[in-house]
Amino acid sequence: MNIGIIGTGNMGSGLGKAWAAKGHKILLGSRDPQKAKTLAKTMALNISGGSIAEAAAFGEVVLLATPWTAATDAIKAAGPLGGKILIDCTNPLTPDMRGLTLGHTTSAGEVVAKWAPEAKVVKAFNHIFAQIVHSSPQFGGQSASVFYCGNDPGAKATVAGLAKEIGFEPIDAGPLQNARVLEPLGLLCIQLAYGLAMGTDVAMKLIRR
Amino acid sequence: MNIGIIGTGNMGSGLGKAWAAKGHKILLGSRDPQKAKTLAKTMALNISGGSIAEAAAFGEVVLLATPWTAATDAIKAAGPLGGKILIDCTNPLTPDMRGLTLGHTTSAGEVVAKWAPEAKVVKAFNHIFAQIVHSSPQFGGQSASVFYCGNDPGAKATVAGLAKEIGFEPIDAGPLQNARVLEPLGLLCIQLAYGLAMGTDVAMKLIRR
Repeated sequence: MNIGIIGTGNMGSGLGKAWAAKGHKILLGSRDPQKAKTLAKTMALNISGGSIAEAAAFGEVVLLATPWTAATDAIKAAGPLGGKILIDCTNPLTPDMRGLTLGHTTSAGEVVAKWAPEAKVVKAFNHIFAQIVHSSPQFGGQSASVFYCGNDPGAKATVAGLAKEIGFEPIDAGPLQNARVLEPLGLLCIQLAYGLAMGTDVAMKLIRR
Repeated sequence: MNIGIIGTGNMGSGLGKAWAAKGHKILLGSRDPQKAKTLAKTMALNISGGSIAEAAAFGEVVLLATPWTAATDAIKAAGPLGGKILIDCTNPLTPDMRGLTLGHTTSAGEVVAKWAPEAKVVKAFNHIFAQIVHSSPQFGGQSASVFYCGNDPGAKATVAGLAKEIGFEPIDAGPLQNARVLEPLGLLCIQLAYGLAMGTDVAMKLIRR
């Protein structure tokens, strides 16, 4: 699959590397295409770099992996996203990382869907620390759960496959509106990692019986 | 320990039974004291029933386990809660259970703390299904995580002990303000159980390495 990644930070590079290792072609897109190209050269052969518009055009699946404050400009820069699967892994954090700027009447995932009305938006990976993607989703034989939500069943199935392929356990969390609970879950993980000093080697596992 | 429980529903009776089995004395309080007395008679010898005010007066620890819509009346009916540990396990759900009525600028936990300013409020158990309390917190050798938050370290330690004693894994989730993320976590569990038809034999486990 061709996957375009918007954002060259820890999360974008981590998922890019993990999907590339499974044989997908990756184009990392940045506001600074030269930076993305230089980064891509240090990575796998099937990872290249370029502009945000190039990444968006390249991918059947596009990952939005910028800080929330940069997300609106990133979507504008992306250009047409008609019919594409857009994975939103942002969290609308306040600057002190103690709260969310969007709440129970909307969510970043739903706002992204308004910005990119032709895309099939799936909220996912926002509660997974980049470090876990970079290292391993395995915790003593258990896979971290990736909760995902969206309104297009086919897009959700694709994203679930992309999560499973790199070792996560995908959990369907319903319609895109449920980004309203997945984003607080991201904040909970951040609070545990930083506020409670657990560090980022933590994740959620849905347990069942 | 003497534990007063406000609310005789699934959650109140489940935690009451579990703590009673560990030797604590329980007083189940209801708007209908006769109903609570009748229920208590079907349970353990160290569980009695009475009014909400009696339950509140009885407990060093008081559990608020009513529907959110009944919580304000319950706190009024409880009377003085000065210095008591008040465990809030409510979720401010909308009637269709698809959203929360309080959001990222406040939470049910914080509102309860305003209603009962002398109590030491701890948010906990709101993301645990009553059925799990009634049956077992064990999932194939793993204990379900109970995230708890509050502003009084001693009260939090007591609640953590009460969770651990009945088989849960207590996880400190920081100050009471973090009820803003624990309540969405409750909603996520509800969405998975009902919206996604997983049923209530699900729980969250914080995994670490």
